[in-house]
Order: sequence, then C-alpha cells, then structure tokens
Amino acid sequence: MFTDTSVQEIEILIGKSQKAFEQYRQLPLSARAGFMRTIGEELEKAGDELIHIAMKETNLPEARLRNERTRTIFQLTSYADACEKGNWLDIRIDIADLQRNPIKPDIRKMLVPLGPVVVYGASNFPFAYSTAGGDTASAFAAGCSVIVKAHPAHPETSDRVSKAIKDAISRCGLPEDLFIHIFGSAPELGKSLITNHHIKAVGFTGSFTAGKALFDWANQRKEPIPVFAEMGSVNPVFLLPEKLKESADEMAQNYAGSITLGAGQFCTNPGLIIGIEGQDLDRFVTALGLAISQIAPATMLHKGIAKAYQQKKALALAQPGTSLVASGTAVPDNLKAIPAIASVHGKTFLTNPLLHQEVFGPYSLVIRCKNEAEMLEVALHLEGQLTATLMATETDMRNNKFLVAAVQDICGRLIMNGVPTGVEVCLAMHHGGPYPATTDSRFSSVGADAIKRFARPVAYQNWPDSLLPDELKNANPLLIWRTVNNELTNKEITA
Amino acid sequence: MFTDTSVQEIEILIGKSQKAFEQYRQLPLSARAGFMRTIGEELEKAGDELIHIAMKETNLPEARLRNERTRTIFQLTSYADACEKGNWLDIRIDIADLQRNPIKPDIRKMLVPLGPVVVYGASNFPFAYSTAGGDTASAFAAGCSVIVKAHPAHPETSDRVSKAIKDAISRCGLPEDLFIHIFGSAPELGKSLITNHHIKAVGFTGSFTAGKALFDWANQRKEPIPVFAEMGSVNPVFLLPEKLKESADEMAQNYAGSITLGAGQFCTNPGLIIGIEGQDLDRFVTALGLAISQIAPATMLHKGIAKAYQQKKALALAQPGTSLVASGTAVPDNLKAIPAIASVHGKTFLTNPLLHQEVFGPYSLVIRCKNEAEMLEVALHLEGQLTATLMATETDMRNNKFLVAAVQDICGRLIMNGVPTGVEVCLAMHHGGPYPATTDSRFSSVGADAIKRFARPVAYQNWPDSLLPDELKNANPLLIWRTVNNELTNKEITA
Repeated sequence: MFTDTSVQEIEILIGKSQKAFEQYRQLPLSARAGFMRTIGEELEKAGDELIHIAMKETNLPEARLRNERTRTIFQLTSYADACEKGNWLDIRIDIADLQRNPIKPDIRKMLVPLGPVVVYGASNFPFAYSTAGGDTASAFAAGCSVIVKAHPAHPETSDRVSKAIKDAISRCGLPEDLFIHIFGSAPELGKSLITNHHIKAVGFTGSFTAGKALFDWANQRKEPIPVFAEMGSVNPVFLLPEKLKESADEMAQNYAGSITLGAGQFCTNPGLIIGIEGQDLDRFVTALGLAISQIAPATMLHKGIAKAYQQKKALALAQPGTSLVASGTAVPDNLKAIPAIASVHGKTFLTNPLLHQEVFGPYSLVIRCKNEAEMLEVALHLEGQLTATLMATETDMRNNKFLVAAVQDICGRLIMNGVPTGVEVCLAMHHGGPYPATTDSRFSSVGADAIKRFARPVAYQNWPDSLLPDELKNANPLLIWRTVNNELTNKEITA
Repeated sequence: MFTDTSVQEIEILIGKSQKAFEQYRQLPLSARAGFMRTIGEELEKAGDELIHIAMKETNLPEARLRNERTRTIFQLTSYADACEKGNWLDIRIDIADLQRNPIKPDIRKMLVPLGPVVVYGASNFPFAYSTAGGDTASAFAAGCSVIVKAHPAHPETSDRVSKAIKDAISRCGLPEDLFIHIFGSAPELGKSLITNHHIKAVGFTGSFTAGKALFDWANQRKEPIPVFAEMGSVNPVFLLPEKLKESADEMAQNYAGSITLGAGQFCTNPGLIIGIEGQDLDRFVTALGLAISQIAPATMLHKGIAKAYQQKKALALAQPGTSLVASGTAVPDNLKAIPAIASVHGKTFLTNPLLHQEVFGPYSLVIRCKNEAEMLEVALHLEGQLTATLMATETDMRNNKFLVAAVQDICGRLIMNGVPTGVEVCLAMHHGGPYPATTDSRFSSVGADAIKRFARPVAYQNWPDSLLPDELKNANPLLIWRTVNNELTNKEITA
C-alpha cells in the first residue's frame, strides 16, 4: 500500500531536510511553539477517522487510543510551552570586566539545535511515541528538522499523523521539508539514514537489537552522532520485608493490574518481582497468581509481538528451576496474550542471564531470595532499567541502605510504593536509565527536558548586543531565566 | 623513577575506587566543596617546589606555571562554590495531585554521580588540565571517585600534585581511595582501565588518535560509557572584508601574538586564517609575516612535541600550492619551535584534507579565497572545532549570514573580534565543540557546567519527604534554585 523509499531518494530527501533546517532554526521560539500547537490541533481535527485507523492497525481499544492521542497533544503543547519559555536553553552570561588585567571577555552561552534528526517510532504507542510523538516534538522544539521512518506495524496511522504535521507546516507557512515521512524496513535504508553526514541525532524506541545496531552505526561514522534509543526494561520491583508483611494482598492486586495493563505491552511493565522467602512472600505470590488467573487474555498489537511473547515466555518457563505459578485461561486466538506468573530461586536467577531478559507481554517472574543479602546480590547483578520500584516502609528503607543505593544505580526512575506503569508527562519525569535500558542515561525521552537531546551549547564571546540572538540580549526581551554572573535572574542586564 | 601499574593491580585499585565512591556519594554537597577547597590549599602549600618540578619537566616559564597553578586553584574553588550552590543539579519537582483522576504522582528529579571516573591529563597544561585539573575537579564536584593516569611527560609534577590531593583527603577524613594515581603508558593498561565495568566515565585531553581509541573502547563495552575527549582543533579565523580593510595591521599584530603564545601549544591556537584575496589581505599577510619573523623561537614542552611540530610543519609546507610566507630565525636547539606562517589558495585547501589538520605549535596557514562564496565553501568543509573567530564589522556580519551560520555549526565557542587563545574559567564558557574537536559536543570541559559530565538524572517518584535527599526535600534546606511545577524558585514547598 505504501511504497518503500529507496536509498537514492533518501539522499535527496535528507538534503531537503537540511535546507528546511537552515530556515527553521532562524525562527523565534514562539514560531516553533505555534507550529507545535498547530500539530496538536490537526491531530484533534483528524477526529474519529484517525482513531479508527489506529484501532484497525494496532488492536488497541478505542478508549486507550483516545487517551493516547490526548497525551500526544499534551506533549506537543507542553513542550511548546517549555520551548517558548526558554529556560531549557540553559543560558549562562558572564559579563565583561574591562578593568581586569587581562580583560575579562563577555561570554554568553545557550543551546542551539543540532540539525536534521531521524526518528524511529515505537509500535506500542502509535501516537505518543511514534510519528508525532515525544521524539518528534522534542526535535521541533529544539529547532531541528525531522525525518520519521514510519513504523511498519502501523503505516496507515503514521501516514495520517504525517498528514496532520504537514497540514500544520502549511498552515504555519513553514518550509515543506521540515518534516519528511518515509516508508521501508530494509536494513540498508536504516543505515543510509543514520550514516548520512547531514543527520545529527537519532531518536528510537524499540528492541535492543535494533537500537544497538543504530548506536553502532552512529558511532562508526566519520563524525559520530548521538543516538537516543530506548530499548526495553524489566523494571524490577523489590518487596521489602515489613511492607510485604503489611500489604501482601493489596500489592498482589495492584501488581496483577500493572502486569496485565495494555496486554503487558508497556516499556515500564514490571517483569521481575524480588522478595525474600517466607510466609509473607507465599501469601503475595498466591494472591498474585489467583488475580492473574482471573484476568482475561487481551489482544496484542500484532502477530509478530504475540508470537514473540509466546516463544519468550515458553523459553523462560523452560529454564531449569523456573516454575509456573499461575496462568490465565487459554483461548483459541493467536493474537491474545495469556498472562502468566513464574517463580525462581535467587541463586538460580543469578546464574542464568536469560532470566534477566524482558518477556514483552503480561508476564512477571517472582525471584525468591533466601535473605536480604541475596536480594542485594540480585540488585547488583541487574542491568540498567528504565524504572525500579521499592515496596517498602520507612523502616525497610532505613534498614536497607545498600540495597536502596544499588537499586538507584540501575534505574532512571525510582518509585516507592507504586507501580512502574504510567509515565507522567512532566518536567520532573526521567524516562531514561543506564544502558541497556537506553543508550544515553543522561537524557529523558519524556517531559520537556527531552528537548535538550537535540541541542548543544555554543558560547558567544565578545559579540555586540545588537548581533546576539534575542535569547542572549541585555534587554532579555523573552523574559527567560538566565544565569548572569553566577546568579539566576529573569531580569534584563543593565550596564 | 615511577613504577608502572600492572593490569592486575588496576583491577584491585578500581574495586577500591568503587568502594570509596560508595562512601563519598553519601556526603553532602558542602563536604565535597570543602574537600575541593582543601585541595586548592594543598596546591598552594606545595609552594615553589611544585613550580620548580614542573619547570624542569615541561620547559614552561615560571610565570606561566605560577599563573596556571592559580587558575587550577580557581577552578577547584569555583567548581566547589557551584557544587555547594547546587543549581547544577537541574532539580525539577512536580508535586502530587491527589484530586486528579488518575492521581498525579509526586516526582522529583536531580542529577546523581555516575561512579568512578578515569582521567587522562594533558601534557600542555601540567596543572590546569592534568592531575588536579578541570576533569578531576568536575568529577569530585559531581560526587565521583577519580583515577588519574599520570601524563608520561610530567610524572614528577603529577606525583607531587597527587600528594596534594591525598593530603586533602586525609585532612578532610575522606576515604583514602577516593583518588588513585597510577603510572604507565602501555596500551593494555589504558584499555584495562576503560573496559573495567566499575568505570562509568572518562575525561581525556590529548591527540585525536588516543582520544578516538578511548572512545571506541568505551563504546564497545558491554555497557558503553561516556568519553569526554578533547582532541585538538585548528580554530579557524575568518577575516571579513570591511574589518580587514579597517584593521589589517592591528589584527596582524594581535594574531602574531596569539599564534606564538606559549610556543603555540594551546588547544585554541589559531591554525587557519581565512580571507579574501586582495590588497587588504596582502597587507595583513605582510604585516603578520613581518611580526612572526621577529618573534624568537620558544622552547616546547618536550622533544616529542618539538619533533612532531617540525615534521608536521614540513609536511604541510610540502603540500602542492602551499608556500611559506614567513618564518622565525633558525636556532641550534631541537627543543625550540620556529614560528611560521604559510599560505594557500582556497581551492587548493578545499581539495587537500592534510591541510585541514592541526600543526601543534606556533604555525598558522592563511587561506586566500577568491571570493565570499569560496570562503563559505571553506567554512562548510571544515571539521568540528573548539573555537571559531569572526573578525568582522556589524556590516560584515549582516552581509554574511550564511557564513556566520556555517561557522557557528562547526564550533563550540564563536568569538567576534578577538583571539581564540585564552579560555576564561566561567559558567558561560563552552570549551567543547563538534567532533572531532571533542567526542561529545553537548558538554564543556571548562566552567562549572563541566560537572554535569559526570552525573545523570534520577527521578524519585512517590517518596516520603523524610527519605528524599536534602536537595529534594520540601523545606529546601540547601536553598537551591529548583523548578517546581514548571516555575523556577529557591523557596521551600508548602503543602
């Protein structure tokens, strides 16, 4: 239905993207923000038609897709607000001191856009982390042009969203090639995008294998470029003793919900639950198993994901020492995911790396540790994660300082007494985490700080005020909070 | 005189560094700051002895070394001030909204230290970018432990500075292994440092070849880590027509000084000067040549650097179409660098990549462009640089917008009507730049923002106030500027 773009066409398109970038970067922050809000309007205007296209392509329920579109529009408008406000530019100004010997020069620093950005959307969020999702919104806010490669699992949805962005470009009178939408899944195509010298950064959400390939290509370029790849996570949950004793049943209910939410197709799905053997853990596992067995299988995004879930679950359950605790009822539908809980001893887990891997779907593995020392051992052996959760009383926290530190070291977001699913779009969110959860633990892909991924600082030395960008002028016409001579202020600079 | 550390010892030392990190990270910002100020005091106390050791090892003049020590102490104390102030932690707080459906969770984000950091100092700054230099100071401020591999060109200086740091550790009652100092230049040693899983980041100043090797090793690890390598720069200077007409002679004098400053051994040394053919450029070149020919050869850091300068200069001058404009007087001393200016046509420069490379020493190449279009062409073909300079009137700037944009794209610091040598230590400084000037254009190695290189964000969700780090508590006991519900404030949060 959609024609793959050829490697030759890519070259030409990237050249056009670079030209559009040259024009777009010169516009004021308010123009970027206005454009992003207009995309939001166009997504709203796409109405029921867009929801129905996405339902057909993703099997996601209507209510979820309506919520996700609302979230996507919120991302665009809240990043637009942040963009216009300008605090993300990290402006530092040190004013000249002509009396000093040697003279202290005037230096003013701000973030500037990197250049054309390539975005690969996720299959599991056809709106919020796809064509007009968080990466695209961040890049536009930063002042970059964007090339999106449509996700092969929802090409029609992507095409319709692309039309909304193009309509916004047209309404705002921006260069047509500011946004370029292409199709194709050949590896050569992906590589030709990443290795083109005009491309300055990459946003990606998907599998470790694909994300790692992009990261390696980007680093092997003559001029390496940053890749922001979010590559999955098992989001470990640590059940500390006092909390477990107090609330085993309540936790089991909450976690049954979190594990099966959206057929378990969230990057923050809790895939590992770590507790210490004993009556309280038994009680939790029994309650969790009972709850899970009563949850009806839900339809997954597409056949490939459903099949991968079955295979990975079967492989995990076939590992020595791993036993099935509970499972939902089988149904004669290959697209449906039957939820399951398995269990393994800490010692076995520690020696089998396969059990550390994500089983994408409504599955979680309970790790039965023999004591707190073994629980710490497990935390120290886990790879980087988007989130980690401590189910703990204040006493538990004080009694387990090394564990808390070890858990912090492996994650980007550290939750107490909650579930990891649900990623709030706000400035304090850090949706990131140490490798291999992402390829760059220093940046978030959710919240307006995500804009910073597509910018770098430039210091302007000894420039006359009239030639400086408005953001750096003495008068501070944009009312940005700036650090002037080491003090934060939103006032103008008076000579 | 100093024994090389073995690969086996490295393993043990890194384990100790990790243990020291675990303790150090728990200390308040004020303790980190106090420690850094104490290092400054110890460097001061090292007195004339330290200066004399460095003079003997580096051939640098006494006044320069005294200034450099003062600068190093200023770095330590100014980064300590920034560390204690806490604004660099980029704190964002979004307060819970329990009325919302679903509930909006409380999320609070701040930077946390990465872990043990390896630092490779520079030969050309035995104090400011070496053992207790900017990288070490940044890492300590971020809350990391540090392992410094002594630069083989000044081991005794490094050892004496290391003693100052160790004395400061002892005075402050900090863990002994917070700072580890090792010797050795075998590649296996370097690799064993970078590839150890406890090491979380690398700071480096030196050659492209060495920096690139570290970058590749770091990216090929099971868990890739950031490498902040500063790898040299030719710091192009663009002479725009009106400015050149107005001030050819004055510019020639200033640039003769900048090119030969410190025997040309600065990473910001102006190695390329780009102008448009004509009388004004001729006048500039003649005056620059005359000034250079009168500057006495200065002693370089060591034989290796002096020999490399002679060879690279000879190779550059041997390129077709490249001619010598002027040279200092030859002297019978292999350690002395004879300053030189060469010249080449824009067209020839564009087709010969060798001429784009740095000749480390008092050498600069004048590129004679036939018109403004060719000058733009040169800008578009240059690689990433630490700095670029525009010698330009306001009219020149307005007449050459594409050139200005192209020049900004290749540099980290964009100077108007000045010289690139002289790197002010202040928050607005950006000492960085696109690859290959550095391996990460998003971070600076000078100024307190350099601290951020060794930290990453963690978001704390739903934590009770009593368990949060002080930096994030409602009461804001450290009086840090924080973004609370999207607004910057240094006030406490009242419920």
